[in-house]
Order: sequence, then C-alpha cells, then structure tokens
Amino acid sequence: MRQLSRLLHANCFSSSLRTCRPVFSTPPCRVYPTKCFATTPAHQRYQVPNRKKDQAVMAGDMTTFKGKPFDRPSLESLMKRRLFYTPAFDIYGGVSGLYDFGPPGCALTNNIVDVWRKHFVLKENMLEVDCTMLTPHEVLKTSGHVDKFADWMCKDPKTGEIFRADHLVEEVLEARLKGNKEARGEKVEAEEDDPKKKKKKVKNIAAVKLDDALVQEIEEVLAKIDNYSGEELGQLMKKYDIKNPATNGELLPPVAFNLMFQTSIGPSSNMPGYLRPETAQGQFLNFQKLLEFNQQQMPFASASIGKSFRNEISPRSGLLRVREFLMAEIEHFVDPEGGKKHPRFDEVKDVELELLNREVQLSGKTTVETTKIGKAVETGLVDNETLGYFLARIQQFLLKIGIDAKKIRFRQHMANEMAHYAADCWDAELLTSYGWIECVGCADRSAYDLTVHMKKTGAPLVVREPRKEPLKVEEWQCDLDKKKFGPKFKKDGKTVEAAIEALSQDLREKLSLDLEKEGKIVIDVPGVGDGKVEVPKELISIEKRTRVENVREYTPNVIEPSFGIGRIVYALCEHIYWTREQDEARGILSFPPTVAPTKVLIVPLSSHTDFKPFVRTLSDKLQELGISTRTDDSGASIGKRYSRNDELGTPLGITIDFQSVKDNTFTLRDRDSTEQVRAGLDEITGAISSLVNGREKWSDVAARLPKFEGQEVD
Amino acid sequence: MRQLSRLLHANCFSSSLRTCRPVFSTPPCRVYPTKCFATTPAHQRYQVPNRKKDQAVMAGDMTTFKGKPFDRPSLESLMKRRLFYTPAFDIYGGVSGLYDFGPPGCALTNNIVDVWRKHFVLKENMLEVDCTMLTPHEVLKTSGHVDKFADWMCKDPKTGEIFRADHLVEEVLEARLKGNKEARGEKVEAEEDDPKKKKKKVKNIAAVKLDDALVQEIEEVLAKIDNYSGEELGQLMKKYDIKNPATNGELLPPVAFNLMFQTSIGPSSNMPGYLRPETAQGQFLNFQKLLEFNQQQMPFASASIGKSFRNEISPRSGLLRVREFLMAEIEHFVDPEGGKKHPRFDEVKDVELELLNREVQLSGKTTVETTKIGKAVETGLVDNETLGYFLARIQQFLLKIGIDAKKIRFRQHMANEMAHYAADCWDAELLTSYGWIECVGCADRSAYDLTVHMKKTGAPLVVREPRKEPLKVEEWQCDLDKKKFGPKFKKDGKTVEAAIEALSQDLREKLSLDLEKEGKIVIDVPGVGDGKVEVPKELISIEKRTRVENVREYTPNVIEPSFGIGRIVYALCEHIYWTREQDEARGILSFPPTVAPTKVLIVPLSSHTDFKPFVRTLSDKLQELGISTRTDDSGASIGKRYSRNDELGTPLGITIDFQSVKDNTFTLRDRDSTEQVRAGLDEITGAISSLVNGREKWSDVAARLPKFEGQEVD
Repeated sequence: MRQLSRLLHANCFSSSLRTCRPVFSTPPCRVYPTKCFATTPAHQRYQVPNRKKDQAVMAGDMTTFKGKPFDRPSLESLMKRRLFYTPAFDIYGGVSGLYDFGPPGCALTNNIVDVWRKHFVLKENMLEVDCTMLTPHEVLKTSGHVDKFADWMCKDPKTGEIFRADHLVEEVLEARLKGNKEARGEKVEAEEDDPKKKKKKVKNIAAVKLDDALVQEIEEVLAKIDNYSGEELGQLMKKYDIKNPATNGELLPPVAFNLMFQTSIGPSSNMPGYLRPETAQGQFLNFQKLLEFNQQQMPFASASIGKSFRNEISPRSGLLRVREFLMAEIEHFVDPEGGKKHPRFDEVKDVELELLNREVQLSGKTTVETTKIGKAVETGLVDNETLGYFLARIQQFLLKIGIDAKKIRFRQHMANEMAHYAADCWDAELLTSYGWIECVGCADRSAYDLTVHMKKTGAPLVVREPRKEPLKVEEWQCDLDKKKFGPKFKKDGKTVEAAIEALSQDLREKLSLDLEKEGKIVIDVPGVGDGKVEVPKELISIEKRTRVENVREYTPNVIEPSFGIGRIVYALCEHIYWTREQDEARGILSFPPTVAPTKVLIVPLSSHTDFKPFVRTLSDKLQELGISTRTDDSGASIGKRYSRNDELGTPLGITIDFQSVKDNTFTLRDRDSTEQVRAGLDEITGAISSLVNGREKWSDVAARLPKFEGQEVD
Repeated sequence: MRQLSRLLHANCFSSSLRTCRPVFSTPPCRVYPTKCFATTPAHQRYQVPNRKKDQAVMAGDMTTFKGKPFDRPSLESLMKRRLFYTPAFDIYGGVSGLYDFGPPGCALTNNIVDVWRKHFVLKENMLEVDCTMLTPHEVLKTSGHVDKFADWMCKDPKTGEIFRADHLVEEVLEARLKGNKEARGEKVEAEEDDPKKKKKKVKNIAAVKLDDALVQEIEEVLAKIDNYSGEELGQLMKKYDIKNPATNGELLPPVAFNLMFQTSIGPSSNMPGYLRPETAQGQFLNFQKLLEFNQQQMPFASASIGKSFRNEISPRSGLLRVREFLMAEIEHFVDPEGGKKHPRFDEVKDVELELLNREVQLSGKTTVETTKIGKAVETGLVDNETLGYFLARIQQFLLKIGIDAKKIRFRQHMANEMAHYAADCWDAELLTSYGWIECVGCADRSAYDLTVHMKKTGAPLVVREPRKEPLKVEEWQCDLDKKKFGPKFKKDGKTVEAAIEALSQDLREKLSLDLEKEGKIVIDVPGVGDGKVEVPKELISIEKRTRVENVREYTPNVIEPSFGIGRIVYALCEHIYWTREQDEARGILSFPPTVAPTKVLIVPLSSHTDFKPFVRTLSDKLQELGISTRTDDSGASIGKRYSRNDELGTPLGITIDFQSVKDNTFTLRDRDSTEQVRAGLDEITGAISSLVNGREKWSDVAARLPKFEGQEVD
C-alpha cells in the first residue's frame, strides 16, 4: 500500500508529465518527465503533502460499492482467469509491463472508447485525428522529451542489476523503519501486498532500533520521495548507505534513463526515432491544417485515441503502470484573450465536483470540498470556463461508464508541480486499492506547445483573424535606404538589418534623438566588427508613425484533457466488483449495460436440439440490433452458467426452457438483482435494446413485464 | 504504371508474406518475406505470369463507377486538401511512408472498422483480443521473421545512398527500354505518374538503340523482377552494369535488410524487441487461453485490429505502401480432420466470386471465372469449406462498405508463391489505378504457427477432446527394467531411454525378432560410445499390445483472413470518386452512409440568429441518435457549401430556410442525385436514421416524402 501513492505522479500518461515542477534555473518552456528533474534543492520548493498518510487510501478501508471489504487478489485472479487481461508472451516467460487484453477486456475497452467518442468527439464536433506512433527524433527534441523524459536509475557494476533509484531508496528506508518498529516491540502492519506477487527486492531486514531523531528524518525523506533529483537521490544513497539489497554491493550513482523506446526509421541509421510517449504532438503539428479544415473558426478541439509507449525501468502495480497503453487525448485550442470562455459552460455550471485545491494540500490536508463548477470558476479556484467545462464533462463521462461517484476527486496541481507556463491543472483521481490514482489530467498548457514547434520549424501555427475594429498602433519605425545600405555593409548587411529590426520601441525612441543630435546611431551587432556598428543618417531614418492593424494574429492556448484508458478500465473494475452473500467465491462485475463486454447470455435449458432454433433466432435478432451475445449450452446448471457470466459482467440473461418451445416466451434475468421477467420474443428483445442503449433501467422493465417467479434451476 | 503491379506481392500485409514460395533447400516451416529468398534459380521455378501486361490494370483504362476516365492526381489532391490524410511531420519536412489521418480519414477508417467488427466479430462470436505491438526477439525468431522478413538493398559506399535492389534494377532497365524506343523513333508513353511526386531516381537516359535480342531479354527480366533472390539481383546488376544512377558510382552487392523496427525493452540492453510486423503472433501465443475461454469448443476464431509496422527501404505509392498501418486479422482454428467443414457454409454457398485460379495464371492469362463458392469448393478449386466461407464473407464485407463489385477479384496463389505447409491461399485484389492490389489475404496455414511456438516453448497449443468411440491402437511397446537399466548405462541412461522411446513401429517389430533370436538388440544412439548401443534382453522387452485412447489430441489448423485496412480505405476512395458533368472541378466521394465520415451537413440559409436554435435542435437530436453532423453557416452560397461537403462524402444535407422558421419543416438533400425532399423535424430525422442504418435507400425516402422542387440557392 505504502509505496503506491506515488503513482499519483509517476507514470502519469497525461499532461502532468509536462506540467510538473518548474526548473527555475533552466530556460523557459521545457518538458518534465514522470519524475521531475528539479535543480533547486528540495527544501526551497513547496512540498506536495504526504498523501501516504491520507487515511482514505488505506487498502483496509477500501470497500465495494455494496459496502463490503474489497479484496484485490480475488478481483485480479478473476480478471486473469476470465481473460480480461493476461501477461503478454506468457508462454515465452512474459515481459514485465506488457499485457494482452482477452475478449472481455478488449470488448470492455472498445465500449469505453465508444462512449468516450460519443461523449466528447461527436457531442462537441471535435476533429479526431490518427497520427503515427513512430516519431522522428527532431520532433521530440523540440517538445523536450529527448532531454527530459527520464527516470533515475542506478546500476550494480558487478551484477549488472539495474534499480530505479527512488524505488530503491524508498524500499530500503521503509524496511528499516519496519525493523525499528519490531525492535521496539511495536505492532507491525501485516503485509498488504498481493501474496501472489513477486517478492520485493528488499526482504524484511533484521529488527534494528533507530534513534527517534533518525526515524523522524527518514519519515520526512519518505514523505518527499517523489521530489528528489538524481543528485539528491545519490546523496541519500550515500548518507543512508544504500546498496544492492541482495549482494550488499556498491551501486553507481543515479543516471537519467530516457523512457522512450528508440528505433531507427529507414534503411540507413541516420534517422533515429522513438515510439510516441503521448498522442499530443501529432495534434500540435497538424494545428494549421486542422484550423483550415475547421474553416478558420475558433475555438475548436482535436482529439486522438491510440497507443503510447513508455519504457519503464521496472514496471509494477499491474495494469496501472505498463509499457504500452491506450490514451485518449483532447487538445482544445482557445483564444487566450477574453477569459477563455466556453459557449456551453452554462450547461454544466451546476455540476458538483469534489475539489481538492492546492491551498488545502499546502496545509498538509486532503479534505475535498463539494463545489459547483460555476462557483469554482467564479471564485477563480478553477482558472477559466473552458478548463471548468472539461472538468465537469470528464466527471460526466466517468459516471456514464460506471465509475463510483464517491471514488472520484479532482486534485489541483501544486504551484511546484506545474510547469511555469501552465495556467492551471487538475487531475481526476479515482480511488482504488492502490490509493488515489490519476486517471485523467486536465491542464491549461497556455501557448507552450504550438510556440516551440513554430519557433523550431517556422510554420505559422497561429490564428489570423480580421479585427472588428482596426487596431491603431503608434510606434517608432526605422526606414533604411537599401541602395546605400548594401554597398556600405556588404556581407554584414543582413545581420545589421536584422539587428535594427530587433530594436525595442524604447531604444528606437532614444536612437531617434541620437540621430537628430549626432547624425548617426551606434547599435550592438554581435559578430560584426567589434560588436558595435555605426549607421549614419544618410542610411536610416527613425520616425513615430501610426500603423493600422486589420488582422489580429495570435497563438492559441491549449486546454488538454488526457485520459489513461487502461487505468480507467482497471479502476472501473475495482469500483463495480462485488460478491453475493450466498456465494462469496464468485465475483460479480456490475458493468453498466453500455460498457459491458457482452450484453446478453443465452441459456438453453440443455443442448437438446429442440432449443437450438430458439438460440439461433434470439442471437441473430440481437446481433441485428448490434447487441453482442454469448450462448452457453454446456451441461452445467443454469445457476452455474449464470454465475460464470456474472464474473464476465454480462448484465442480462435469457433462458430458453420447455415453456419457450410451447409458447415462444422467454425469461429475462437481471444480473444485479437476479430478478426475472417472462415475455414473448419481441418484448424481450425490445427490453434488451432499451436497457443496452440506456433508455430504460431494469426497474422500468421489471415494472412493465410480468415477473417470473420460477426459481433458477440450480 | 508499369512498376506497380509488383504491389500485388511486395509489402503484402497479410498471410502471403508467410506463404510465398517454398525454399526447397531449407528446412521446413519458414517464414517468407515480402520478397522471397528463393535459393533455387528462377528458371527452375514456376513463374507468376507477367501481370504487368494485364491490360485491365492499365491506368488509362480505369474509369469511375460512372464510366468516366478516372484521374488519380485529382483524387489525391482532394484527399490531401480535405485532410483525409496528410504526410506525417509535414512541418518538419515529413518522413516518407508515414501518414496522419485527418478528421474525415480517421472517421472513415473508424466506420469501416466498425462494420468489420459487426460483420465478422459480432456475427460469428469471434474472440477479439488486443495484444501488444512490442514483441520480444525470441517470439519473432521462432516465427521466422528475424531471419527471413527482409528486402534486398545495396549501398553506394562513396555517397552512403541506399537503394532497394529490385527497384533499382527495374528502374534502370525500364529507362533503357524507353531510351531504345526513342532511338528507334517509336512513340514513348507519356509519364503517367503524379507530376507532384518526387522525381524518380533514374532520369530519362539518352536515346540509345538496343539489339532486338537484348530488348527481349530485358523485357523478360522485368517480367520476373519480383522473383529474383539477392544473389540473382547482384548478378543482374553486374551483367547489365547497373550503378548509382546519379553518380555512376559502383554499388556494393545486395544485402538483406530486415523490415522490422528494432528497439530494446527495459533499461538494460539485453532484451531486444521489435514492433510487430503483423497482429497474428499474439493470437497464436494466446491460443491455449482462448480455447479455455471458449470452454474447449472447436472450431472458433480469434480476431485482432491494430497497427503493425514495416520499415520499408523506400516507401512509395502513397497509402498503399507505408511504414505504419492498420490491420484486421482473423485466425480461425479448425480441426484438420473431417474436411474443414464450416457450419454456416450453406448460408454463403450461392455467393458468386470472380476467381482467377492458378491454372489460368500458369497459362499466362488473367481471365477470371464467375463461380459460386459452393461449386468452387465442390470441385476442389478452393481447398475446403472454411476457406470458401471466408472468401464469400470477405466479398460481402467489401461490398457492404461500398467497394465496386466490378473491381474485385480473388486470385489464387501459385504453388510457388505458397509455403509448402499452406493448403491453399487466395487474395482479394481490388482494381485501382495502381493495378490490381492485394487488400485481403486468405490462407489456410495448416498447423504451422501453433506447431513452431509449441515446439519452442513446450506450451501445449493443442486441443484435447474425448473420443466418442475409444480408439484402439495396436502397437509395439518397449518395457524397460528401470532397476537394471540405470546401473548399466549410468549417465547415458536418459539418452538411451529417449532413443528407445523414439523407435518407429517398424523398427520395434524388427527389433523384437532380434531380441528373440539374439537375446539383445543394437540401436543407434548418437553421442553415446561409438553411436551403437547394445541392450540385452534382461533390460528390455518388446511386445505387441492394444492401447485404448480415450482422448484425441491434435494441433488445429488455421484459416487466416488478413485485411490491410489502409489499402481498402484507399481503394474505396478510388472506387466511389466521380465528378458531376456540370462541375468537373469538384470531386464527389459517394461513400455509403454507413461508412461516410460525417452523415449530415446542416446548412442554415445564413448565420442569422433566427436559424441558430434550429441548427442546435437538429444537431442535438441527430447526435442523440449517434449520427455525426457538421454545420456550415459560412457566408458561401448553399450550392457551394453542399459541393464542399460532396468532397467529404457527406451523404445527406439539411437546409434551414425562412420556411423552416415559420413551420418547422426542412429540406433533406441526397448527395448523389441532389434530389431534395421537405418534411417536419421528426420525419426528417427519422429518414436520416433509416438511411444511415441501412434500413432504407434514398429512393425509398424520396418516394414517401414530398419532393422539394425549390432550386438550390447558388
């Protein structure tokens, strides 16, 4: 449990990787990796409060939505057994951090993506694009990923083993605290980890009592473990004498390990490339064409759904930290002027969110406040309407697919978590047995991304729009006599001209006086002569004039909601998993019908040929309606067949019995209540269609169709 | 035109890459690359007939479905201008072979994938899986890709330039033929390539007359250009003195260039991996779990939709040969015994296909024969029912998404194109301006894939099923006296035992006589002593007994339909592109409503506020029905707005005019006929829903709703 609150930051698949802490000593506009490379000492920075102590996330407190204790090993065992997912290349021994999705996991993911596309892309006429995963080096150099998208690792030079530095420091220090507790005869918490998991590298060490002061110091280090730079981690390793836990061998100091998978494009090795670590860059690069496609209308959003890749040093935590994962990202482009209003904000302003703002976090607490998003924007807590609009829409999406409303919160990034260019950033966190997990990031990234790519390539990633009122600008203009200018400066002409072009308004005003007084000006032109250049008044005039601007040109700001679909899928499974009192061995996954992998189980009483035509009719009819079915005509009892499919989350079941053969009626069973109704073919398929498309709930169907009182045949 | 019929083979994304020509001198069960590494001289092998001479594929003969000449440059310009696709990383100069899909291309692809999923996965209860693209070395070593998935390239050691060997030979020889024609004063065909394309590496060379015999020789070489091995290509380069066309520099001999993108998984460099070149391997590796998921029932199919990657040496031909592409693959697992029947074959047996069988091709022709698939299976032309079933289903799918029935043919692989293990293989080829392009492969791959992975890993990738009748097997069994056996052979005991275990039935029978006669047997055990081992009768007995087998164990065969979605998308666009007689400058893409990127264009007469609520009501109502809309309230004329959307293939348009404000009626326009009807809100949206879901055609709607005779406002 302890180590996992770090997931709040690490391996975030969203904006937050690029909106971590500002590096004060480095030039503006950089990308930050999953772990930030802060160059200022930790004590000079704000600290994210120690969310490890956040009682709400303790696994022992996790309950199912039925209020019973939640048991992660049972859920994980169910998910693997029923092929929601499985380790990839299992028969070859597997590769950590790579998972395949089997039929129910694949269908569940597809259905969630489908809801996402309808909820966001279709509803808001977003421009969905599909960009390549292969990305040449230069693009990711510009975005900052080549230099900064890294974790710290240290190597044992003797054994060749590699450790992720922060994980290692944390595990060793945690083990020492535990040893200390034992030595003092205090109660040590039982190991909460899944017993089936691989053992930690650090075994429980001998019970050694530590000084009170040292204990406090170590606790403080652990509280800040996410915030250390590589150098600081190296210092901690020296200070606390941290070595290879298995061999006690010395380790080399931490070095940065870039998390992108590298490859080479084309037959020669002169075009290095990477697998994209996010889908965003492709959207930024196509901005100009998308704006054109949108007939120059602002604001608009692009969207992309696709796989991204991160070469984790040592993946753990199952589906939450993987090397290949599905993302859905939106880039909403908005005019930075005019307060970033959103035309549909009114529709969501009364939506209530659980907000954990940065002031509360600064005070070391994690108290959320239920706030209407309209209010939050009004008070300035959420920076602007567009950001607020998306926070509300994100919550609506999560609720639509079945996420437990009580297990959602929106956490604001601390000032020190965000890049300096970001205006505001909130994460939608979902409560799981691993703690509060960032599943959606929503950042206002200002004009950063478009600006860096424009600067690098010269492509006009800007909006040009006619001004309603022409803008009059009073300014000092420099006019050159080009005929004389060229011959005088010869090869330096262009450089001198550029230096004049770059003069500030203030300087131009001052120089105009020089020109009048002295008949010449002297300006700095590095690289030409001694760096000072004299321009006589025959070659230049400087005058104040009024310029009329009819066109406004600006770089749009970007609001970026970024979804980790795999994490949402996993969190959803935790949220809707439960067991019946009478059958605790069998789990139930109560997916809403819209996202359930299979919608209907068809159960003939037996495999008798009399039932076969009914199976065929039902499944054909439902397939025509686009509703997925599964038939189980195995010899198992009907009750067993139903409970097997409860594990797959199949919301509805149809039984075909002898009565069906006589009068063409069938029973329809609801997974969650196990209630059944009985009716004719058209009524049954009609009810199913209503339920699957969300037009009716089971209670509606149960109220209008005759209840079936016959017992499930066990 | 000439060089492109090669696409029929090269860069095939499907099974055929693994079912090319058998390599007679190498061990069984290998994978063949896009270009086959045949080790036998070309003249010893059958030749695929020279499809370059196939008149039907000449670009000049290509017509739109309206019977007018097809103009590829216009279509490609439309597709790029309207952002169906665009070169990836364009503002960074682009990377050849990588394309991004913009909003209409992305929506079109998604809709086609959606139809595919309903047509195959949902309809047949296939087990869809989503496996990782990152694949460790060992898996692709076993499958054969590491050793054999390559093209031939040659390098200019001075300039560092790299050429794909077969392309180079072809281009140089073609240029010489052209020069010869010029020298003889014959008419030279105009350059058919897109003028906007990059120029070929080989510029037109001087007009030099060649001997008649040489011309014929070169023509023969060109006809076989797909079939040469690297060594042969090297010989051709020597024979015809082919050098770097730009510098006339000597080139190094062709070497194999593996087409997989390589990377490294994890922080140490000891786990090399690749991006998958196809989605099939993940399905094979999970076979055992999928069978379990399917409750051990056979036959069943898995399916997968996802990106694959091939590092082409020099990609060309636009969307037809790219480095990252979307595939949809099915692996249908079937019992090899009992003729590979398919339970639903009856449903398709009367479907007529245009078959180009291998006998016809052997005779050097490309005449297709219209044949009912039932008949083709009956006569043995198509190997079995399951293969035949999928051929019919593939055609049904292609027609459903709008492919022109007259531009589909199924070409059977020649014996020398298939791997020896393949039972039969057919490609669905679509006629495009690049020639007949392989878009779907459908191969019976026998038990090859499961067998190699089982052999490598030991995982039981087999089906075990109880026999209805226990099988009685008469066989010679060897019994060893283990107590005496160990002490006698000591460390060699296991090896000798294994050698005995491996003895054939015939040999056992013969040895039983030896044992009786001579009181001992002598067997070959390589590596023990001198390779001959004597076993006396005290240690062994050999007897004929009857064994009863209750369980049957077999490795299923695989029928693999494999779809290149990107190629299908491109071919579709060619098939449904046309222009109106009165407006040839504007193209129209007549997508069926089901796959059209946007279904409805909403056109208010102007941007007047009176119209806004109607726009909102209509778009909200249609979005609720899951129907994508686009509103154009620009100042352009209604006619212009419609024709802009004809380019995007939007099948339906709603006009909101002053009449609408008065009586809440709207006009609905059909893209293809430009006919309009007028009716109230519910009738209009109802008609749209019927059209989009394929329940009605425009003629039905036009017949029941009042025609609108008002002219389009231009």
